[in-house]
Amino acid sequence: MMDGIWLENQNVSFRQNLPMPHADPSEALIQLRLAGICSTDLELVKGYYPYTGILGHEFVGDVIQATEHEDWIGKRVVGEINISCGRCNECLAGRPTHCVGRTVLGISNKNGAFANYLTLPVENLHLVPDNISDEQAVFTEPLAAALEIHEQVQIRPTDRVLLVGAGRLGQLIAQTMSLTGCELLVLTRREKQQKLLESTGARFIERGTLPEHTMDVVIEATGSPDGFEIARQAVRPRGTIILKSTYHGNLELDMSRIVVDEIQLIGSRCGPFPAALKLLSTNRVDTQPLIDACFPLKKCLEAFQLAAQPGIFKVLLKP
Amino acid sequence: MMDGIWLENQNVSFRQNLPMPHADPSEALIQLRLAGICSTDLELVKGYYPYTGILGHEFVGDVIQATEHEDWIGKRVVGEINISCGRCNECLAGRPTHCVGRTVLGISNKNGAFANYLTLPVENLHLVPDNISDEQAVFTEPLAAALEIHEQVQIRPTDRVLLVGAGRLGQLIAQTMSLTGCELLVLTRREKQQKLLESTGARFIERGTLPEHTMDVVIEATGSPDGFEIARQAVRPRGTIILKSTYHGNLELDMSRIVVDEIQLIGSRCGPFPAALKLLSTNRVDTQPLIDACFPLKKCLEAFQLAAQPGIFKVLLKP
Repeated sequence: MMDGIWLENQNVSFRQNLPMPHADPSEALIQLRLAGICSTDLELVKGYYPYTGILGHEFVGDVIQATEHEDWIGKRVVGEINISCGRCNECLAGRPTHCVGRTVLGISNKNGAFANYLTLPVENLHLVPDNISDEQAVFTEPLAAALEIHEQVQIRPTDRVLLVGAGRLGQLIAQTMSLTGCELLVLTRREKQQKLLESTGARFIERGTLPEHTMDVVIEATGSPDGFEIARQAVRPRGTIILKSTYHGNLELDMSRIVVDEIQLIGSRCGPFPAALKLLSTNRVDTQPLIDACFPLKKCLEAFQLAAQPGIFKVLLKP
Repeated sequence: MMDGIWLENQNVSFRQNLPMPHADPSEALIQLRLAGICSTDLELVKGYYPYTGILGHEFVGDVIQATEHEDWIGKRVVGEINISCGRCNECLAGRPTHCVGRTVLGISNKNGAFANYLTLPVENLHLVPDNISDEQAVFTEPLAAALEIHEQVQIRPTDRVLLVGAGRLGQLIAQTMSLTGCELLVLTRREKQQKLLESTGARFIERGTLPEHTMDVVIEATGSPDGFEIARQAVRPRGTIILKSTYHGNLELDMSRIVVDEIQLIGSRCGPFPAALKLLSTNRVDTQPLIDACFPLKKCLEAFQLAAQPGIFKVLLKP
């Protein structure tokens, strides 16, 4: 038996006596070291997607069982969250994160990481280098999501980039953007968000001083429909808007503006773990200041309450 | 004095005794040979954009005056429709069709081509090779608009491409798409549209047999919000939707689908004239079957009425 954080009918609760997960021969059984609460977890609680089960997809842990891959036992790992079939058209086309039959750790049909133990296929695992702490490693998944932008769009050192929203994910995006040498503007009024980004050389602006139709790239990471309207006003003709927020509900779009200004919109989701681990290992990205608190699993209600507060970045959970 | 087709308060009328246009020293005075009615003209009449003046932007004509560029006099020309300042950030960045102060022939603050005479800056003109007829040359502008897609997106010979809408512009898009060797599907039930595209090797499908989430590229050229929903259903994860329709009104968009499936949306407008002339000159694109009728300017009401009928492609106007 084990402890875990259970979501059902938009209710989060701490449960003891949950059954131990069963690892298939191709899977690893992982003992949790540390997990992180993400905005997607908060959206799931709000009902963005009808999920029932153990929450959590940002984690670092130790492999304690791996029937077909015993060399993994004892290794400290992070894991990719999309579990793909390897046989559908998307998998065979090299897009396993878009597998049509995928389950997703703690998000869709697969119990997640907010528990003493979890399972994942061994092929989803990445070894954590010794010089990366648990507190850094737990950021691998969101950092990979930030890097997905760079996988999709070439950010030139001469580009003017606007980041709308400097919360959990926005902070990591700002850091990876600043590594390109681009001119980075961040739309935020919050002093704490600004302070954390001082080292990036980003310039901070407020909505009233938003440059109109001049930005080469705008990244929408607010998690609200309002953010898109800001992005559209700021982007230049033939510029790119990257959409990083998933939220419940529809967006009203003036399609003619997109056509006349020849704007490019790109949705962006999960990204490359190896690159994220490299940037953590070489200290290119600083995650320590983003940690606001760490709770034991059993204090999950407090943890979720704090994570939902405006201005709070990362809340961690430990067994 | 001259004749022309005047738009005012969404009313189209034939006017005699319009003043001759005045050509600035850097402009050419052009005598009309032939002009074409485009869907944008019909949208302007419906009030898509509040324009008052002479309509028309698809034309071929003869230069009869060009103060600073006398070598152009007597030349048969087509002309790019965006008149740019050459000094703003967009112009200096190499995007003159997005000039912030632009006027647009027959669309925005510049009298158009549905008249005996029009003016355009000489730098907007392109010489029409002798082996291109007037009836072909009048398609240069919309063909360039079709080619803009290829300027923006790499269409691979192995791509599966769906064209939604095979009307005026759609027909030209289908033809340029078929030149890439890609697998081309066209969503249309109209027999006439299908017959015209037989030579492209396109396969025709109806909405009921639409392949779901499998197309690499989908081109939305219906001019209706319905077309976008079809495009979204058909495009594969990480696929591209190209938006070619400008129409009045907003679109409801489920942003989370765009993010989760990492879809790319690209607005597409005016394109490269030299490439269009090359394809016409080498007979790579067949425009003759697209001509449904030709009217004198004074029969503009009949011409516009016919052009607005479903299933009608190109209606031409001559002085």
